[in-house]
Amino acid sequence: MNTNWCLYENSYNGDMVKYYEGLMTQGNGYLHVRGSYEEGISGALQDEEYDRKPANVTLEKHKKQKSKWGTYIPGIVGPHPYLKTETINLPYLFDLRVNVDGEVLDMENCQIEKYERYLDLRDGVITRSFIWKTKKGNELALTFKRFISMADKHIAVQMLTIKAESGNANLNVTGDINTGVRTNGFNHFIKVIKEKQEGITRVITETNGGNIVTMCSYLDQEGEQVIQEGEQLTITKVIHVSTDRDGEIPELKVADVDIRTFNVDKALKRHRLKWAEKWEAADVKIIGDNRAQLAIRMSIYHLMRADNEDDPRVAICAKGHAGEGYCGRYFWDTEMNMLPFFIHSNPKAARNLVKFRYLTLPGAKENAKAYGYEGARYAWESSVTGTEECACWQYADHEIHVTADIIYAMEHYVKATGDVAFIEECGLEIMKETAKYWAGRVDEINGQYELLGVMGPDEYLPMTMNNAFTNRMVKFSLEKTLKYCREFDQAEKDKLAEWEAIKECLRLPYKETDELIMQSDDFSSYADLDFDAIWTDRSRCFGEFISQEKNYRSKALKQADVLEMMMLFPKEFTKQQLEANYDYYEPITTHDSSLSAAVHGILAAHMGRITEAESFLNKVIDIDMSPEKRGAEEGIHIANCGGLWQLIVYGFAGLNSAMWEEDVVLEPHLPKEWEQLEFPLMWHGEKKRVVVTHEGYKIY
Amino acid sequence: MNTNWCLYENSYNGDMVKYYEGLMTQGNGYLHVRGSYEEGISGALQDEEYDRKPANVTLEKHKKQKSKWGTYIPGIVGPHPYLKTETINLPYLFDLRVNVDGEVLDMENCQIEKYERYLDLRDGVITRSFIWKTKKGNELALTFKRFISMADKHIAVQMLTIKAESGNANLNVTGDINTGVRTNGFNHFIKVIKEKQEGITRVITETNGGNIVTMCSYLDQEGEQVIQEGEQLTITKVIHVSTDRDGEIPELKVADVDIRTFNVDKALKRHRLKWAEKWEAADVKIIGDNRAQLAIRMSIYHLMRADNEDDPRVAICAKGHAGEGYCGRYFWDTEMNMLPFFIHSNPKAARNLVKFRYLTLPGAKENAKAYGYEGARYAWESSVTGTEECACWQYADHEIHVTADIIYAMEHYVKATGDVAFIEECGLEIMKETAKYWAGRVDEINGQYELLGVMGPDEYLPMTMNNAFTNRMVKFSLEKTLKYCREFDQAEKDKLAEWEAIKECLRLPYKETDELIMQSDDFSSYADLDFDAIWTDRSRCFGEFISQEKNYRSKALKQADVLEMMMLFPKEFTKQQLEANYDYYEPITTHDSSLSAAVHGILAAHMGRITEAESFLNKVIDIDMSPEKRGAEEGIHIANCGGLWQLIVYGFAGLNSAMWEEDVVLEPHLPKEWEQLEFPLMWHGEKKRVVVTHEGYKIY
Repeated sequence: MNTNWCLYENSYNGDMVKYYEGLMTQGNGYLHVRGSYEEGISGALQDEEYDRKPANVTLEKHKKQKSKWGTYIPGIVGPHPYLKTETINLPYLFDLRVNVDGEVLDMENCQIEKYERYLDLRDGVITRSFIWKTKKGNELALTFKRFISMADKHIAVQMLTIKAESGNANLNVTGDINTGVRTNGFNHFIKVIKEKQEGITRVITETNGGNIVTMCSYLDQEGEQVIQEGEQLTITKVIHVSTDRDGEIPELKVADVDIRTFNVDKALKRHRLKWAEKWEAADVKIIGDNRAQLAIRMSIYHLMRADNEDDPRVAICAKGHAGEGYCGRYFWDTEMNMLPFFIHSNPKAARNLVKFRYLTLPGAKENAKAYGYEGARYAWESSVTGTEECACWQYADHEIHVTADIIYAMEHYVKATGDVAFIEECGLEIMKETAKYWAGRVDEINGQYELLGVMGPDEYLPMTMNNAFTNRMVKFSLEKTLKYCREFDQAEKDKLAEWEAIKECLRLPYKETDELIMQSDDFSSYADLDFDAIWTDRSRCFGEFISQEKNYRSKALKQADVLEMMMLFPKEFTKQQLEANYDYYEPITTHDSSLSAAVHGILAAHMGRITEAESFLNKVIDIDMSPEKRGAEEGIHIANCGGLWQLIVYGFAGLNSAMWEEDVVLEPHLPKEWEQLEFPLMWHGEKKRVVVTHEGYKIY
Repeated sequence: MNTNWCLYENSYNGDMVKYYEGLMTQGNGYLHVRGSYEEGISGALQDEEYDRKPANVTLEKHKKQKSKWGTYIPGIVGPHPYLKTETINLPYLFDLRVNVDGEVLDMENCQIEKYERYLDLRDGVITRSFIWKTKKGNELALTFKRFISMADKHIAVQMLTIKAESGNANLNVTGDINTGVRTNGFNHFIKVIKEKQEGITRVITETNGGNIVTMCSYLDQEGEQVIQEGEQLTITKVIHVSTDRDGEIPELKVADVDIRTFNVDKALKRHRLKWAEKWEAADVKIIGDNRAQLAIRMSIYHLMRADNEDDPRVAICAKGHAGEGYCGRYFWDTEMNMLPFFIHSNPKAARNLVKFRYLTLPGAKENAKAYGYEGARYAWESSVTGTEECACWQYADHEIHVTADIIYAMEHYVKATGDVAFIEECGLEIMKETAKYWAGRVDEINGQYELLGVMGPDEYLPMTMNNAFTNRMVKFSLEKTLKYCREFDQAEKDKLAEWEAIKECLRLPYKETDELIMQSDDFSSYADLDFDAIWTDRSRCFGEFISQEKNYRSKALKQADVLEMMMLFPKEFTKQQLEANYDYYEPITTHDSSLSAAVHGILAAHMGRITEAESFLNKVIDIDMSPEKRGAEEGIHIANCGGLWQLIVYGFAGLNSAMWEEDVVLEPHLPKEWEQLEFPLMWHGEKKRVVVTHEGYKIY
């Protein structure tokens, strides 16, 4: 077990089960399974039904459960009675029950010693081993191993090795595909057929989203047998998963595999090879900071696992397909927080992520229409069709910047990769449709255009006037739209003139020369807060200490807003401006959003405030990895994983964004204890390596 | 049938069933039943379950149903899965099925002639008569009559007279208490027991709100019988209703009645006597305008019917206990729109309406606590406990003016009746608790106090800064609180100083001398709308033509806001100011709220713009009475009923509010065609009569 490569647990703790389930989620882009115990744990019901209603996203309380199974195939979604379209938690395919001398294996109730479990980030294999002292006095050494194949997308494998350390053991192992599961308290299954033929268990699930999911498993040894003292045996279960959606994507075509004769050793080799290739293109090496080293690898592991690079019909959901938080939906996080990592490590994956927005353009058009506009309005929370799935109107109605963010991301992809063909193939249509939407969405006031009733990135002010970030982003998106429309000689003349006028006259709530930029026109009219009096425990969310009503009328930012803009448009603001705004906003920013800390860290690094940047680095790492916070319980904060990558690459290594530089330019600000930072970098189609030390940097 | 006293229908029309059900609701304060047909109509399911979710209150779409039974006892409430606590639709007690020669009576499918039905507003009796030509060729004359006794609160009576006009008729009549009902698509019944003993049908219903409702009925003739040609018979059904809540109120104590021997004739006499007393104290007579005459009587009928003058534990819900719109909840409407009528016609009833807020003070304290404040914060939508039941946060969180409106109403009650004892008994405690709330709710900004994040009466701007109406109202409520606290030597000195400071320094978003008063600090920053382009059919709600998102960022008022303030504080604004504000706001007011037209009518009358006032009078009347709009389908817009009374008394008769005048002072502006207007008026405990003509007015 390599501590720089493995997420490790060395004792069983019931309170930590759900946290590790999230943190140790395995997957291959196509299929994802949380790191739950194969045998379940007693007292943790998986099929309890309850009403989960929409709520303020920051403060949403999830059902208290000791353990939560989660098996997700991005794209397999269906309607929830309260939450709109959500990813469906599918039958638990790793179910494996062990009975020795009539005693059922259960971490809660059995006598377990020398427990250890780790997820090896290099190949995504989970290994769990321990000694089980049975009530009858036998001692058994058990080792569970499992993986979801990165090479064979439809295959998952699990193995159990049992050695009878003392005494003969009467063993009975049964394997199952457990259909007793719910998603956010709701049963999405219309019909479930389970059958067993020739040793193969087959479960066919019809979902309320209209999909068919087929899971088959084969356990090579079933029934009762005796292990003689000192002997050991290994039981293998091979699982095959497919859906009615697979045929549409050639890479996901279901091969004709006989899981009874499937060669697991070879499969594991293929799987490891694939993972090795992925790591080769992406690994970030930090010498001198083991905590950061493990954290960035954990982040990269989850980014690579969560992304299905072959399938542009899905993106990466806010919990990285590792839980049911945010209902498996796609936010601006994909573009703003995760995409840079893919742009610079796996351009093909990046292309498909951007292309997802092209495939969901029809949904975005429906949204515009539903709101009474022409063109396309991207959903604040998107599922596979692109229609708005956010159940809370304040976000759905007002967080319109996502529609412009998508254009920024597209341009970023094109600038970094040189793939201008993408614009002609997909981008132009998106641009023209979103420009039509903006033309309808702006209000003309005194000869200028304004965007009223807007929620910026800061979700603690739901309806502001002319949010700086949003207006700047929209201006940018119209500028690019006009540029490409002219380049490719597209769109009618009068449309271009209209868009040009809006781009020119869209009012920014600040002047170039302003030192301090107000987040929105009305920002100064909100109330100041006595944070110390209200926020009496800073280890918890600020939002827990204040009513939404009071929060919504006060100057408390959920996350970077003006600062996010300054990060995305670095050439437009002086260092003095950056410092003034950072010093003004940071103290009134609660960082209740997991998208906030990384941005602040990057900017702190840019300003050369390394201690502050390091403190944000710690915050970023803690979001999912802190065993106290257990942030990973409901899934991985995958945007924050992308944020960590950005903090290291843009912040500490000081890479200038490909958006604004043709060449690789670095302005590093390494933390003191970091001896060396090294990472690969795809740039304009070329694979480069960057090595940064305190002496300087090299690119080769 | 007196056309000045009766709501009349002269043919059966399936599309009008639900409208007349609402409009012809009967009741006695304690019990209310919609004007549904006794025999039901085919194809109109009453027990269909469906999901009704919270929505923008203006645009909420109700389930399309041909007929909707409704039987309500104010106070019998329970939780709905989506809508929070709501009034429960109880078993339908007027169920009576008629079968002649094997044919079932049904307005939809039978051959019906000479149909007429009317609700006599004088006594609340519904009479329906028609000729039924059966398929066998018989002709029968049927007359249904029914009433809910105003004298015997627990008793309802129905009668059916059948005459065999041609041919002998084989008759079978069955009476039932029909438990197959739902409320807003939900079944609130935990347990229903139905039994028949000694001719009495007894239904005991246990609700999910924890109440027991007992209904007994006795039909004096049951089973098959023959009516010879030319003969007639009358069948009588007596119903008794009681609940486990009755015992708490002496006036509602259940008498020991044997419904089998109950004397219906005497009961009808007692019932009529009670109604006559009520009308004596309240009838408004208009000579020269039959439409207005019937409308004001319809309004007064529903106000008197809907109010349980004996029971301060309940108020009048927004649909007047005549439907399931607004879930049977109490809004500021009670205080602002209905209370003046009761103050001046039935001070005892008025007292109990105000006392309702005292009894729900514990709920208001809970609300304050839930939002993080001290003191008491009245619910935007209250049920019997006073806790916030509004399921949409923008109203619940921001429409805080209700807490001050209650103080205004209390003061109005005291000024008009002279009942200062009420202040000591109930008022002071309410005042002190609400003052504590305001002290926590204000923000101190530059030495002034502000109320940020507020929805004023205009519900189309959900989060404004310093709403003029709200701030003025809060200032008023603090002023009265301080006055009475000092008078009765109450409250700690430091509290008084704090409240005094807030009262003094609560910023009004206007100066005394401003001609045009902005609705809120931020009002001018909202967008102007091209109403003609958007609102292409003015017979429908404006809100149907615009997305909430666009509406919320534009200058389109749902209802009077600044103008409501000017009406309530008439001495503070000059006629010039009134005109300037009326001329500015009226054209951008959509009157989508039923609370708007009456206010505008009153102010138009005050300005002497009689044609305009008359046009608002028409709007007010149309809200429930227009057969095209059918506004009464989901219940009566009872606030608008109170609004009509105010329009006539404050507007056309020009009565100066008792709030600001010691004596009865009138400044009449009668519509041209009105020859005479006459109404009784309780004033400082004395009963006066007011007669207004174009020549002048008399009070005696």
